[in-house]
Amino acid sequence: MHERLQALSRKVSNWGRWGPDDERGTVNFITPDVVRRGAAAVRRGAVFSLGLPLGADGPQIGQGGRFNPIHLMLGVDARIGDASFADDLVIMPLQCATQWDSLAHVHYDGKLYNGYPASSVTVGGAGRNAIERLGTGIISRGVLLDIARLKGVDRLTAGTVIAPADLEAAERAGRVRVERGDVLLVRTGHLGLFTRDKDRQAYMKASPGLGIACVEWLHAREVAAVAADTMLVEVMPWEDASLVLPLHMLCIRDMGLTLGEMFDLDALAADCAQDGVWEFLFSAPPLKVVGGVGSPLNPLAVK
Amino acid sequence: MHERLQALSRKVSNWGRWGPDDERGTVNFITPDVVRRGAAAVRRGAVFSLGLPLGADGPQIGQGGRFNPIHLMLGVDARIGDASFADDLVIMPLQCATQWDSLAHVHYDGKLYNGYPASSVTVGGAGRNAIERLGTGIISRGVLLDIARLKGVDRLTAGTVIAPADLEAAERAGRVRVERGDVLLVRTGHLGLFTRDKDRQAYMKASPGLGIACVEWLHAREVAAVAADTMLVEVMPWEDASLVLPLHMLCIRDMGLTLGEMFDLDALAADCAQDGVWEFLFSAPPLKVVGGVGSPLNPLAVK
Amino acid sequence: MHERLQALSRKVSNWGRWGPDDERGTVNFITPDVVRRGAAAVRRGAVFSLGLPLGADGPQIGQGGRFNPIHLMLGVDARIGDASFADDLVIMPLQCATQWDSLAHVHYDGKLYNGYPASSVTVGGAGRNAIERLGTGIISRGVLLDIARLKGVDRLTAGTVIAPADLEAAERAGRVRVERGDVLLVRTGHLGLFTRDKDRQAYMKASPGLGIACVEWLHAREVAAVAADTMLVEVMPWEDASLVLPLHMLCIRDMGLTLGEMFDLDALAADCAQDGVWEFLFSAPPLKVVGGVGSPLNPLAVK
Amino acid sequence: MHERLQALSRKVSNWGRWGPDDERGTVNFITPDVVRRGAAAVRRGAVFSLGLPLGADGPQIGQGGRFNPIHLMLGVDARIGDASFADDLVIMPLQCATQWDSLAHVHYDGKLYNGYPASSVTVGGAGRNAIERLGTGIISRGVLLDIARLKGVDRLTAGTVIAPADLEAAERAGRVRVERGDVLLVRTGHLGLFTRDKDRQAYMKASPGLGIACVEWLHAREVAAVAADTMLVEVMPWEDASLVLPLHMLCIRDMGLTLGEMFDLDALAADCAQDGVWEFLFSAPPLKVVGGVGSPLNPLAVK
Repeated sequence: MHERLQALSRKVSNWGRWGPDDERGTVNFITPDVVRRGAAAVRRGAVFSLGLPLGADGPQIGQGGRFNPIHLMLGVDARIGDASFADDLVIMPLQCATQWDSLAHVHYDGKLYNGYPASSVTVGGAGRNAIERLGTGIISRGVLLDIARLKGVDRLTAGTVIAPADLEAAERAGRVRVERGDVLLVRTGHLGLFTRDKDRQAYMKASPGLGIACVEWLHAREVAAVAADTMLVEVMPWEDASLVLPLHMLCIRDMGLTLGEMFDLDALAADCAQDGVWEFLFSAPPLKVVGGVGSPLNPLAVK
Repeated sequence: MHERLQALSRKVSNWGRWGPDDERGTVNFITPDVVRRGAAAVRRGAVFSLGLPLGADGPQIGQGGRFNPIHLMLGVDARIGDASFADDLVIMPLQCATQWDSLAHVHYDGKLYNGYPASSVTVGGAGRNAIERLGTGIISRGVLLDIARLKGVDRLTAGTVIAPADLEAAERAGRVRVERGDVLLVRTGHLGLFTRDKDRQAYMKASPGLGIACVEWLHAREVAAVAADTMLVEVMPWEDASLVLPLHMLCIRDMGLTLGEMFDLDALAADCAQDGVWEFLFSAPPLKVVGGVGSPLNPLAVK
Repeated sequence: MHERLQALSRKVSNWGRWGPDDERGTVNFITPDVVRRGAAAVRRGAVFSLGLPLGADGPQIGQGGRFNPIHLMLGVDARIGDASFADDLVIMPLQCATQWDSLAHVHYDGKLYNGYPASSVTVGGAGRNAIERLGTGIISRGVLLDIARLKGVDRLTAGTVIAPADLEAAERAGRVRVERGDVLLVRTGHLGLFTRDKDRQAYMKASPGLGIACVEWLHAREVAAVAADTMLVEVMPWEDASLVLPLHMLCIRDMGLTLGEMFDLDALAADCAQDGVWEFLFSAPPLKVVGGVGSPLNPLAVK
Repeated sequence: MHERLQALSRKVSNWGRWGPDDERGTVNFITPDVVRRGAAAVRRGAVFSLGLPLGADGPQIGQGGRFNPIHLMLGVDARIGDASFADDLVIMPLQCATQWDSLAHVHYDGKLYNGYPASSVTVGGAGRNAIERLGTGIISRGVLLDIARLKGVDRLTAGTVIAPADLEAAERAGRVRVERGDVLLVRTGHLGLFTRDKDRQAYMKASPGLGIACVEWLHAREVAAVAADTMLVEVMPWEDASLVLPLHMLCIRDMGLTLGEMFDLDALAADCAQDGVWEFLFSAPPLKVVGGVGSPLNPLAVK
């Protein structure tokens, strides 16, 4: 196993922190007072939807067997008496668009978050750390750090590493501080490649994102979850080619920190830039898919 | 067409109320001040998940082609370097468990809500009134009226008609009043047949629910949405056998009032009974399924 | 409606030929004596599979919502006592690879084959002319006409129109004659773009194929079915841009002649070229999908 | 491991018989002369379809995650010019109705047929012994032994053990002998519980079938495949409760003998009883599902 991974793992591990049976990880930081802090962030009553549409025009390009949602009708005009109704169905990878990764999504060295054996994920689903463990939701205060805006660009180029210093510069620019239990949203502008330029390939093949140095920062700040407008939150290609998916490994498997991917932060960011307020109520309950290793969703931010 | 349906339709129709292009109906009642009222209802920071688990053990019994979610793994232990990951997929009717009906779900007399032709729902999905129109979410103040508790029973028997007087008695008992833009949650206790007694057939074949007289009450109160712990919100069998699904027709098609079905209200109701507070922040964003006539979801109530 | 379509329709229509309730069309030409003729064509006992593999690497490129088969495991190592077993599942468009079109697949002027209303195909499937009507199979004598070999090329270029004279030249070259009830297989070599060159786009976007003049020839010869190694059997782009899918319209809708698409004829053709025998037993039973407008399959030729 | 299983395994194993890389097992018995014998069995040209319809009304009752086929439309009336077309899709377990088990379907003691490791079947499918290995079909002479008719009953009761003596009595009654390379079809009449009595539960929960003593008989006769009108071919409940699925284990895993399940043999049997001829051409090519552990199909018998 990679030395740096081992060293960082020892520093940031939350295994056992919430007991030997915990399957929720840093979402445990969202205590009632944190929820109240989130609700108190609502000032104007403005609501922003951060979820991508779920349909055939989604971002997937077929990598790893992932495909865009297939929406089909079970009935269109079924009648009983005067009444007519329609029913429908969806076939979709739980990782197809805006999503939470569950704490069963990744592992290394044969262990999932909190030390559960990797073999607890089988063809039947995740026996441990499944997404339905986060069923009481992820509702907290959200803080948006817009690194693209900070750098004065529409979007960071793919491969750009975001460092802790960038996060802190964005905090200072926004007069906001990421605190224990907050959900951190990081905007890179990269999503515009898909939503505006319609270039799925460019969007999915590489991206700017958090560098490995952010792991200790996220640990220190005790964030409940972190999400971004990219496929991976972390930078791709990786900073060190021999250390694959380091943030996924350290955040999800060691810290128990849920990652949110492909969040559409553009409208929210424009609003924050305008009123200078970068905090809000953040409500993003996952679907309670039994044994799920992730969930598509439609997160809300309320200012 | 049924005379009573026609007469009520004229009384409660909201067609045109929010313009000729509206596809959101009574969700328009959720104005910024209503959202603030919802946020202000958070006192303790206690979060309740109202969504049923999505899995093979769901409530469906095969009626109308509906089935329980099929959860399958795309990969279990894919490796890149030290990193391993799992991916999964779901096949599910959008009406399979806890759900919102979109305003395209039902119609009569060839028209959907706001006068759109019924033919705008095709095998390709809903061209009008699709669920993604509610993408900025349904986040508001919620009010729970627990009719079972009011009547002193574990659950109302199937076929029990809930009248406006029952709703008002519950308001008085709970010292709460349903106001413009609120989301009304009605508890009948019927869900226990499924969640506790494991009797899907009894749960799905008949249920207590709102009677047709409630339509005018809901219209007068200007609620944004109404949800219950049953399959239909409304009583089944119908009060008048010749007037099928009257609440669906009048609420969804005429009022543009979204219905929420199979919400699990038991834990929330127990809490409200204990602290005497029946209002809360209610956050229930649907998935933005393109052309969807409904959406499964995991609604949250925060007290 | 296009004049040439109308004129040809009058000439080749088989509506009513097998009674007002017929849903099998030219497959009715496969009488017991034709089946015996097919069986008698078996000389060496050599078997050829003409079906493409059904998997993620199939020919589909996403056109018209079609996708390649998604194969997933329901279980991998379920145990009872000493015994272990695996189960699986497929999600696939019935038109995704080697397939029969049913007589419900296409229509024009509001009518399906034999005059059934187009409205008999609904979101619930084909009420008339569904593929399960061909359930007793398509087993007959097969005749292969290899037009690429006739022209001395690996593959005909896309857009090449095959004329009746080409079919007759191939008959003469192969010393074989297409007769009443035979299944005609036409090889263009075009499939090599997919199977050898791995160029799905080139394979699917255009192709050589039968020209409109072949319609009367197929009618005169009274073939039971015709299949080719292309996506459409007929040439694409169409000979006359204003007359779309003419063979589909005239063969399927007017003649009741089933088309077989994306048949892999390469190994069979090589064998026929070697031994000079271009006839064989052809066995290609469709899956009996209730209400299906087509069926994937694995056709066999036996020499 | 069960002693009797071990002892029988040693007697009937075909591992290595067709080389260390074989993945086809007893289908190798279908040599060209056997195919010719099959074709020669066609006398009248009468065709029988042995496949159950694939639809929502199939035999599955939800056991082991299996469900009946879900047939959905991708399009109903798509238009280009004058032409209209419909497309559809199916979601189905490969074991849902009339099917072949592949040689990857079962195993014990960590080994598949021919000694391949059980781990070659993963969430990605069967790496060895997949159904597409039988792609050149299963076309041979078929022999039907109708044990229900032999015993003078409509159907054998569930739990009835069929012994080698029964098979031989049916041979004598039918003046036919099962030979090397033949496909043996065994009729119990049990399917009538589903097709006529509509009692899925009774059909699926128990069945008459081949007893363990038949394993050596099948081995001695060198049949290429064996199919029946039941869910398992073998008797259920098992003769010895501690020896689970013995025929599956010994036939599929040790002999490499493919089993065919839920074949509808009623019309064929009635015809054979009438003309006294119990042999026929049998054509039953599986779909070439890549990595598939089975395949639904529509087998044909031609007399």
